[in-house]
Order: sequence, then structure tokens, then C-alpha cells
Amino acid sequence: MAGKIYVVGLGPGGPDQITPRGEAALAASDVLVGYTVYINLIRDRWPGKELVATPMTTEAQRCRLCLERALAGQTAAMVCGGDPGVYGMAGLIFQVCRDRPEVEIQVIPGVTAATAGAALLGAPLTHDFAVISLSDALTPWETIEKRLLAAAEGDFALCLYNPASRRRPDTLARAAALLLERLPGDRVCGLARMVGREGESWQLCTLRELGKAPADMFTTVFIGSSRTMVLNGRMVTPRGYEKRGEL
Amino acid sequence: MAGKIYVVGLGPGGPDQITPRGEAALAASDVLVGYTVYINLIRDRWPGKELVATPMTTEAQRCRLCLERALAGQTAAMVCGGDPGVYGMAGLIFQVCRDRPEVEIQVIPGVTAATAGAALLGAPLTHDFAVISLSDALTPWETIEKRLLAAAEGDFALCLYNPASRRRPDTLARAAALLLERLPGDRVCGLARMVGREGESWQLCTLRELGKAPADMFTTVFIGSSRTMVLNGRMVTPRGYEKRGEL
Repeated sequence: MAGKIYVVGLGPGGPDQITPRGEAALAASDVLVGYTVYINLIRDRWPGKELVATPMTTEAQRCRLCLERALAGQTAAMVCGGDPGVYGMAGLIFQVCRDRPEVEIQVIPGVTAATAGAALLGAPLTHDFAVISLSDALTPWETIEKRLLAAAEGDFALCLYNPASRRRPDTLARAAALLLERLPGDRVCGLARMVGREGESWQLCTLRELGKAPADMFTTVFIGSSRTMVLNGRMVTPRGYEKRGEL
Repeated sequence: MAGKIYVVGLGPGGPDQITPRGEAALAASDVLVGYTVYINLIRDRWPGKELVATPMTTEAQRCRLCLERALAGQTAAMVCGGDPGVYGMAGLIFQVCRDRPEVEIQVIPGVTAATAGAALLGAPLTHDFAVISLSDALTPWETIEKRLLAAAEGDFALCLYNPASRRRPDTLARAAALLLERLPGDRVCGLARMVGREGESWQLCTLRELGKAPADMFTTVFIGSSRTMVLNGRMVTPRGYEKRGEL
């Protein structure tokens, strides 16, 4: 009988950020598979459990390993940072298992960087928002630009994942320059880094300053909508309760 | 000395869906304040704790109560379903406390309906996506329409909160009709209802069928991007790994 694959979100990092449901899935699994950074985050919490850490860019191989174990009757957990369904392994697991419907797949959500970073900065995503990854490893840069412009056109608050990396140090600057063609330079922006982990930090800036702000693969970037403001040093997008005359 | 306000996300509902960090904040609070539905979800878990449940549409009053308690030196927890920063109370708390910078506000993120519902359906949000509330209680319907069209223009996967209610039974149908002017009728869609609670259910349909699908305030709706597909009965938006030739 075929086994099962859990795709588990660890949340932003610390052991107090995964849900009990996620923790129970890890406990019920024979093997925990994941990108090295995430396996290292949980290594100490699972002594005696089989752990398989694989480097970045071997995602399909990592998913196939889970499939092989499940076909052998085991329960495998694919461990992801944040939420597995937001730029995580959930989609790829379904793709890799497409010809094996007998393998049960259960995705266990976690707190994603958009909401964890937002909580640190204040409340930038309390109204409608769009989430875009600036990584062009799997997405043509033209598609990314098209989405940035559409989000600006719709006056969405924006959350950017993977704003820059060593290979592409300038993608955040390019995105900010593009948005500056449509949005005012004083638009409120924010950056959250290493959320929920050691070295956590955050800062606010304007869209004009965003292109020069320090960003890397551990940073999540927020760009306000036309209604976003700074209140007591925090970034806040009001939902509109003030219209009820209650404030 | 002024007290503190925690704004805590319960996640989708069950006690196994809140993070240990959120649970610790509830434990550390003198009073738990929230919308009746959410207070009822946790009532049995906090015997002896002061609980204040207030009905919908009294949001500002609810936030002011937290502020009053904090000014009196207490620690108050504003309890929200899902994540407090996504259509939750985080923004309003900062607004209500804008003249009282001495009150510390800490937002504790939770699993929001977008990712909890996505996990149930498969992996519809694994690539770029936009989140829009269809409630026109605080947002003009013209703004909602503008954002729906911008999201379609940007080929985002879409997640819709508050798709319909007793007061506005037709908003999902109106949104679907509008999107059908720009998107093909066979675009993959999905609905998740009562996620993480008793009576949880989900279904897939096409955009053509979406306007007649059953939706209420406990439903979260997903509309795929041009790349979203159905794999073994689940809704999946691939991230693009197949381009690496690994699949």
C-alpha cells in the first residue's frame, strides 16, 4: 500500500512559529526532506529521525525522493519555510506525483513571509494586496514587470519575495525604478529581514529610497497602496473603518 | 506604566492551527477581546480568563477596549481569525492607538485563509497572486472592480475573501461575470469553506460555473492564473520548475 506525503510549512523559522498540526505531521513522518537551510532549522528538535537535506536547485529531485519513499509505503514530510503553498514545494509535489494518484498528499499550511513580515512592520497588508517574486530563475523578467505594473494599476499594496540575490543584486532596484514611473516617490515602503530568526530586523523607507535599500534572499519587501501611512513608526494600510465615522 | 496589546491570529480555527507564539501571547494576556465567533472558538481553552466578545460592526469599539485596558496597565489580546494583518484588526488597532505611542503593540501572525484554503485545494497560490475582499462595506465596489480587472490583466492567481454574505448574495456572481469579460470560461477555480473547522469542505469548478457556486462569509474563493491546472483532482499553479527540464 502506498504511503503518504505531508508538505509542511515551518512558518518564519523559530520552533514557536510552526502550528501544532505541522509539528504532528513531522512527528508522524518516517523521513523529513528539505532544503538544507530548513532542515538545519529543525535538526535539533528531531533527534533519531531520518533527515535528508538537499541544496537549492535540486527541488524536483527532492520531491521525487518523497515520492519514492511514499511508494515504498513510508510517510515522508517535505519541509518548507513559511507556507509550502507560497513559492514553496506544494505545487511541485503535485506535479511530480501526477501519475501516482495512489499517493496521498496533504499540504499543511504555515505562516508565510508576507504575513510574518507584515506583522513586524505594522499592518501593511490589511487591505487588498498582491504578492510577486522578483526571482527570474523560473519566471521571465517581462512577466515580473507586467505584474508589477498591473499591481500598481490596481492600487494594491505589494509584497515582494526574493527581492535580490547574489546572482541578481539589482532586481529590487529595477523593480523600484519601474514602479516609480507610475507611483509617487514618497509611497511608504518597508523591508523585513530574517523574520522570526536570529538577527531579525526591519525598516521603513520611501519608494524613492527602496532601490538602494539592503535586500537579499532573506528579505521580504512591502510597498504600500495609495492609502498606506506611517503611524507611530509603523507601516499601516487602513481598511476603511474611518468611513463609518467610528474613529 | 502603560500595558501592552497583542493582536493575535488564531489561524483557520482549530486549536492545532494557532502557533505556540500566539498561544503564549493569549496565556500572557489579562483579557482576550474579539468578535463573538472567534472568542467562542477559544472559550473552552481559557477557563478563568476574562473574555470579551463583541458583535460584528463594532470593530473600533473593540479596539478601544484593548487600548483602555492597556492604558490601565493591563495586557490585552485582540483575537482575530486567520492572520490579524489580512482583513483583520491589526490596522485598526494602530489607528485607534495613534495618539498613544506609549502603548506597545505586537502583532502575532497566523495562518490566513488564503494559504489554509489553498492547502486544502492543492497549490493554487504557488506562483504570484493577488488577494481581494469582495465586501463593499468599507470599500467602494468600483475599487473592487478595478482591482479584479488589474489582477486579470497581470495574470495573477486570485484569492477572494468575503465572496458573498446575506446582505450581498450576488457579489461573487458579479465578480465572476466581470472577470469572464477578460478571462476564458474554463479557467480553473476553487472554493474552500469552513477551513480547519467542523464542516470543512472544498470543490473545484470553472470560472464559467463560479457565479453559481455556493459561497458565503465562511468561503474563500480561488481563481487560477493562465497556468493553473487540475492534477489528480487538485488545483495547482506550477512555479515553472518544468522549464529546468527536471520534470
